[in-house]
Amino acid sequence: MSRSGEFDWISQYLAPLAGPNSFALTDDAALLEVPKNQNIVVTQDAIAEGVHFLTDDRLDWVARKALRVNISDIVAKGGRPYAYSMALGVPDQWRDTDMQLFCQGLAEDQRIYDMTLTGGDTYRSPGGLTIAITMFGGVSNNRYKSRHGASAGDILIVSGCIGEAALGLQVATGALKCAEADQRQLLQAYHLPDPPLALAECVAKHATASMDISDGLMGDCRKLCTASSVAAVVDRNAIPLSAPAKRIIEQDEALWKAVLAGGDDYQVLATVAPADVDAFISLACEHDLVATQIGFIDGTESGAVALDIDGVRVSIDAYSYSHF
Amino acid sequence: MSRSGEFDWISQYLAPLAGPNSFALTDDAALLEVPKNQNIVVTQDAIAEGVHFLTDDRLDWVARKALRVNISDIVAKGGRPYAYSMALGVPDQWRDTDMQLFCQGLAEDQRIYDMTLTGGDTYRSPGGLTIAITMFGGVSNNRYKSRHGASAGDILIVSGCIGEAALGLQVATGALKCAEADQRQLLQAYHLPDPPLALAECVAKHATASMDISDGLMGDCRKLCTASSVAAVVDRNAIPLSAPAKRIIEQDEALWKAVLAGGDDYQVLATVAPADVDAFISLACEHDLVATQIGFIDGTESGAVALDIDGVRVSIDAYSYSHF
Repeated sequence: MSRSGEFDWISQYLAPLAGPNSFALTDDAALLEVPKNQNIVVTQDAIAEGVHFLTDDRLDWVARKALRVNISDIVAKGGRPYAYSMALGVPDQWRDTDMQLFCQGLAEDQRIYDMTLTGGDTYRSPGGLTIAITMFGGVSNNRYKSRHGASAGDILIVSGCIGEAALGLQVATGALKCAEADQRQLLQAYHLPDPPLALAECVAKHATASMDISDGLMGDCRKLCTASSVAAVVDRNAIPLSAPAKRIIEQDEALWKAVLAGGDDYQVLATVAPADVDAFISLACEHDLVATQIGFIDGTESGAVALDIDGVRVSIDAYSYSHF
Repeated sequence: MSRSGEFDWISQYLAPLAGPNSFALTDDAALLEVPKNQNIVVTQDAIAEGVHFLTDDRLDWVARKALRVNISDIVAKGGRPYAYSMALGVPDQWRDTDMQLFCQGLAEDQRIYDMTLTGGDTYRSPGGLTIAITMFGGVSNNRYKSRHGASAGDILIVSGCIGEAALGLQVATGALKCAEADQRQLLQAYHLPDPPLALAECVAKHATASMDISDGLMGDCRKLCTASSVAAVVDRNAIPLSAPAKRIIEQDEALWKAVLAGGDDYQVLATVAPADVDAFISLACEHDLVATQIGFIDGTESGAVALDIDGVRVSIDAYSYSHF
């Protein structure tokens, strides 16, 4: 099996992914397009072998995960991704076929999300595959939604289902066994997050604050509350679960912990004024996305998040998954 | 010695480096400023322990090198850096004092180059310290200079002195010994590149093509020639050498190879129409920078670079250093 040099890899596999102002990746830099009448949202997340993904994970899925964890941040701010830069740390054992498969994954998601590559860097990474993506999105002027705008009375809304990826990681490591079809679905959620692209419009139009859920619902909710100087109550019964997750939790209540704190959801947690909740949910529905009310903001300036379990409020020591 | 958690490190050491639209790094993303009447130049270079720097290098200098290799790219395009995003892969053995020293280096160069941090990511990197910087610069509208604009008759110009960093690496690894003061100067050039910030104006105003010299003068010159479909002749006697480099080469002619192909110069290689050469060099001089004519472009569409040694043209097999 062969391994070409850095510049061959760039010209053969990466250059076809480049955007119009990137000189087919033959220049030191690129010009970054500025979307008309929009602000530029920028974010950067890195994923590393053995830390954020497993060594034998499919390389095209690893590539797509690297993009999607960043897309998730852009969407949660109310933006649409349009370009990205990539620093790719390549393990010594990679061959041309590995690079090819990895770039197929990038190409697939570039099509799905309508993005191009601006440029970046490839370098030797003897410690294992590392992908640092810097992603650029456009958000309508003054519609960027930070974590800082929640206020008392706002309703807490999440997109999609929560907890599948955390349960999927337990399936991947062998810690959790369940029916084969359920395993497949959970594994897919872990390997290939599905950030709700079209929800960006709902966030931009109707949210008071918003963030993506990457380190666990409860811990991330606490971060939003801290940033906004408010508190929140989350109704556990309202948290949207997929059918496999529901079945697993019915068998083992202890797995609620994975759902509440496991992370890797890459869904949106938004706060919405009561008058706008219906509009938010309807607009999501028009885009075939599910948005669910899971609680509310109260006015205490504590950053605390309480969990309501069957009518009993439990003050949880909010914890979240850390890759650190 | 203590090691705080990821979020403590962010709030204590990184947040003070953040720009005005970055929410003190408490948000998922940031808004990227668009400089008035300018295009945005974006570049991304990563450096990794054991590949681009040595394990016991000073951490504040490593931080500054990570920034400067990117500043070099922006300057070579005719731009001024103003912001950057950073993905920081932290080794398990790092303690608070390491993080503090690293961030001191970032702060120092933010002051020198007038830049702020937009955001980024910190993550565990058991394989060693890795820093991926995405840097943003402003370039006057339509003044971005790629590698593609050189044409027959243009003069080749380099900034600063060439070869010091490559000789400095040999000092650092013990392969080269020389007078102590010379060693110090060469080591400094290797550890702390000094991209010629003010040269951006000369490039934007007067260059036909431009790039930074990072992989070796001859190899990088060939890249520029290939991109522009031209050839070049470089006069070895004209290549600007510092006093230590000159002394070392006089003692060992074989070290020309390090100067010509060693890389890590982070100076600018530009092509300039003959009529504009004086203006380019004078403007550089006004900014206390040295710019030197080292050759010219000929019209052959071969991408070839010939080296003129004392009047004899040697067709060299252009080689360059690869970190890959």
